[in-house]
Amino acid sequence: MTDDLTRTISRSVWHGWGDPAERHTLPSHAWAFLEREIGARPIATPDLPVALLDVVLPEPALPEAARAALEAVVGAAQVRDDHATRVDHAGGKSLLDLVRIRRGDGSHAPDAVIFPGSPEEVQQVVQVCSEHEVALVPFGGGTSVVGGVSALRGRFEGVVTLDLRRLAALTALDPVSRVATLQAGLRGPEIEAALRPHGLTLGHYPQSHQEATFGGYVATRSAGQASTGYGRVDDLVLGARLATPAGELRLDAHAPASAAGPRLLDLVVGSEGALGVITEATVRVTAYPTATARGSWAFPSLAAAGAALREVAQRHGDDTLPDVCRVSDPSETQVSLTLAGGIGGRLLAYLRRRGLTEPALGIFLWEGDSRIRVEQRRLRFGSVLRRHGAVRLPAAVAGAWQRGRFSGPYLRDELLDHRVLAETLETATTWDRLLPTYERVREALLAEFAAQGTPAVVQCHISHVYAVGASLYFTCVARALPDPGAQWLRVKGAASDAIVAAGATITHHHAVGTDHLPWLTAEVGALGLEVLRSVKATLDPVGVLNPGKLVPLQENSQRLVRTLTGS
Amino acid sequence: MTDDLTRTISRSVWHGWGDPAERHTLPSHAWAFLEREIGARPIATPDLPVALLDVVLPEPALPEAARAALEAVVGAAQVRDDHATRVDHAGGKSLLDLVRIRRGDGSHAPDAVIFPGSPEEVQQVVQVCSEHEVALVPFGGGTSVVGGVSALRGRFEGVVTLDLRRLAALTALDPVSRVATLQAGLRGPEIEAALRPHGLTLGHYPQSHQEATFGGYVATRSAGQASTGYGRVDDLVLGARLATPAGELRLDAHAPASAAGPRLLDLVVGSEGALGVITEATVRVTAYPTATARGSWAFPSLAAAGAALREVAQRHGDDTLPDVCRVSDPSETQVSLTLAGGIGGRLLAYLRRRGLTEPALGIFLWEGDSRIRVEQRRLRFGSVLRRHGAVRLPAAVAGAWQRGRFSGPYLRDELLDHRVLAETLETATTWDRLLPTYERVREALLAEFAAQGTPAVVQCHISHVYAVGASLYFTCVARALPDPGAQWLRVKGAASDAIVAAGATITHHHAVGTDHLPWLTAEVGALGLEVLRSVKATLDPVGVLNPGKLVPLQENSQRLVRTLTGS
Repeated sequence: MTDDLTRTISRSVWHGWGDPAERHTLPSHAWAFLEREIGARPIATPDLPVALLDVVLPEPALPEAARAALEAVVGAAQVRDDHATRVDHAGGKSLLDLVRIRRGDGSHAPDAVIFPGSPEEVQQVVQVCSEHEVALVPFGGGTSVVGGVSALRGRFEGVVTLDLRRLAALTALDPVSRVATLQAGLRGPEIEAALRPHGLTLGHYPQSHQEATFGGYVATRSAGQASTGYGRVDDLVLGARLATPAGELRLDAHAPASAAGPRLLDLVVGSEGALGVITEATVRVTAYPTATARGSWAFPSLAAAGAALREVAQRHGDDTLPDVCRVSDPSETQVSLTLAGGIGGRLLAYLRRRGLTEPALGIFLWEGDSRIRVEQRRLRFGSVLRRHGAVRLPAAVAGAWQRGRFSGPYLRDELLDHRVLAETLETATTWDRLLPTYERVREALLAEFAAQGTPAVVQCHISHVYAVGASLYFTCVARALPDPGAQWLRVKGAASDAIVAAGATITHHHAVGTDHLPWLTAEVGALGLEVLRSVKATLDPVGVLNPGKLVPLQENSQRLVRTLTGS
Repeated sequence: MTDDLTRTISRSVWHGWGDPAERHTLPSHAWAFLEREIGARPIATPDLPVALLDVVLPEPALPEAARAALEAVVGAAQVRDDHATRVDHAGGKSLLDLVRIRRGDGSHAPDAVIFPGSPEEVQQVVQVCSEHEVALVPFGGGTSVVGGVSALRGRFEGVVTLDLRRLAALTALDPVSRVATLQAGLRGPEIEAALRPHGLTLGHYPQSHQEATFGGYVATRSAGQASTGYGRVDDLVLGARLATPAGELRLDAHAPASAAGPRLLDLVVGSEGALGVITEATVRVTAYPTATARGSWAFPSLAAAGAALREVAQRHGDDTLPDVCRVSDPSETQVSLTLAGGIGGRLLAYLRRRGLTEPALGIFLWEGDSRIRVEQRRLRFGSVLRRHGAVRLPAAVAGAWQRGRFSGPYLRDELLDHRVLAETLETATTWDRLLPTYERVREALLAEFAAQGTPAVVQCHISHVYAVGASLYFTCVARALPDPGAQWLRVKGAASDAIVAAGATITHHHAVGTDHLPWLTAEVGALGLEVLRSVKATLDPVGVLNPGKLVPLQENSQRLVRTLTGS
């Protein structure tokens, strides 16, 4: 059975998001909305990406001896440096990446791409790169939105990208303990397709699910749309194999928990290719759900939603909390319902009659292996929500969200064609700081767009809920300046400063990469950074692994990142 | 309101467990049992501990300059080296510690004990020790059972113990997010007493609850009796302050989760005083339970219990799983019910009539803030258990366990008086390996005792339950050889080898200390150990922090530990 969780798509087009065969275009009422809100409209001669062959790549600088050594490991056919392969690996899918590559700037492309076939080959490739002083960038689905897969050279002459697509096996399954060992290159739908015949699921569905890989999930400490229920990847990982220049770090004790010192596995989770290359990891899996329920509710405000979700998370926990739990702020609610067309307008009118003039729309999904228990959770949840003034909407609203759950990022491409910038950022904080952080970041975003003279729509939703707090996911849409990359860097910088000032985390599920690096010190302190550096120096003494990501180079990191990102 | 969770006791006697004012003696039917099982009986002239003044301490070797610098930080009155204070800090509460100190061997005592009054003073003390090359051993409740607080000198002339009892404040409380910041020196009952007025609880009750400290919980990656419900300390910690010679490591982002690189906090949790001194930590707390339910069930076998608990943990999760969840193997069940006297015998007879000839006794507690939900959880749990052939027993059995939950270790002292050795060890593994690990470790223990010619009772219980596995907690009682320390080291070594061979973790909640150090490499690998060493070298470049614990010294660690523990 193939469904939206197991359906594999073609690898994404080099200049945009997702399956090249899928077309996602903005309907005319969406354009009408954008014209009303930010004065944007389709332009007659869109800013289309350059032709593939017009992308300018760096002169290949891979030393011949290094290439020979790499070919000796993986075979000549698996060391590729044709134009298309290099362009395909020239960056991730952040707005900065897209803006750069659409203009034909392939400066972040590797000299060659290596396609190893086994963890052992990865281990050898890593050691060859260290010996030959060639920078190495691990690459899974290539969907990083923080610069994580840009092929930066650091202080090295050559840089290669290590594409893990051939490591795509379910290597071990323990159905009794519900523990699976998966190779790093498995894409989201491939993970689900491998587990489904055993009646199991990983339950990890980021918006990049169709392209992102298992190794990427672990390397970026990822959370998916259903992680409120299934747990973040850090909650799921029990063991891992990390290929490093110093040898393979194998952490594979078969234990649900341990007190054997600091949990070194938590250095692998979130290691972003800078401490090693994750070749496989062992994770907790769950029974594939045979029962599901959907719910949609409107809250009088985001504050009311926060209070309700907090009560559920703290007092009721997993016996009530939805697996997917997201609530849009009034701005995002307006946008979503307006873009939904006539039905959305009727819902807004209905809510107005019920006294919700600035409603906050909640989408909730429960999954399980018992229809009765799933229904009980849904009903208990509803009874709490009613006490917080929430109004129940047709469950079809949640169904509509579910159908479009992976398609949002496709729209960025068409918007860029028409000089409209769209990008997201996220954070998380404790409940007491949630609303102040929301206000502060929102104001920082709006103020920066205003200072640039580009009208913007700034919207936000609570995307994940925990007993002690929640995450906030912001989406910005604005008229693009001639240099949208520089424009976004200033906006993102203002938001990041606001996040740090609020005491929240710089990222809830998008990792550090290059883009969050200037704010990492605020989060872990100078000494925390020293600890990270010492771990890197032990595992990667030459420093070839993903230079400039996660662990700042010794130079002034802010200046460096600014240079690297071209601002 | 004072109850068994908030009642503070006097600090333990130097040669044994717990409140000196409490007497716990074995009833005559317990002695009858021991005579029957291992041929042990009370001896006429018990092996009592030496007199306090007869404990032989090392010549104080604290350099005068170091003492002066320490006094300058904390004041002369807080640097103590009187005989009683040094003896009080001469070790933890493992069998090895007790055997050593009862004989008057104070060789693991520090030269002086420092009592700092604030995190800032701790930070200065740590730096003074590093500058003056004096080893420093953090000390909370002193209840380590793995050698964690022995004042070992490593390569240094002098060694001081840092007693954290004066850091005993609740420094911040966020009742909205349910997050508390607690200082390291708070003992278990003090934590609960500080949170109770706010209607909150930490829910962390190891058997050492009455003496152990919050800092110790974090430093040892501890689990308590109710951690199946409330979560291990690693699940609770959100932030920490770690005093290190390289400066203070502050990890205090206010976030429920983050993707900002590897989780450095997981290097602090389980750092065992070897990477720094935890002065305070921020944790998730829970509403103090207003409703509780108890249950006791007998299973046909430990395997049947495992199957039932696995089903509950995997299929039902928190909406059913008890907060306290422990099931004794047939041996422990026999012992518990036999020692309970007449009622225990009647229960055994009843179970025999129900066909349970070798029953496995389960004790279960549920807690919450709604009587209805607590009852629902208990009832759902029971319905699963019945399908696995379990027989319900009076809830009073669980009540009896609950009343004695902190008193078990007291008995070791009287047993040692009468040349009977009693000690515990624990592990955890995945469900598929649980029974094989149980059999393997049990056989290793029995075989080693048999080889020594000392009849033994070896019993075990499942102490914590997770979706992917569970922990196993073994208790051994045997006739003591003339050198019970050497005897136990051989037994423990055989069990640890069996644990490693089974692929389980060397410790589920007792930390590494000195005693598990020889097996740490098997768990994290030589490269994992190198990573630990690099982190230590960064935070503690001179190596003064708790030498010989957690991070092996550069010498052959096995040989070293053997030397240190006197075997």
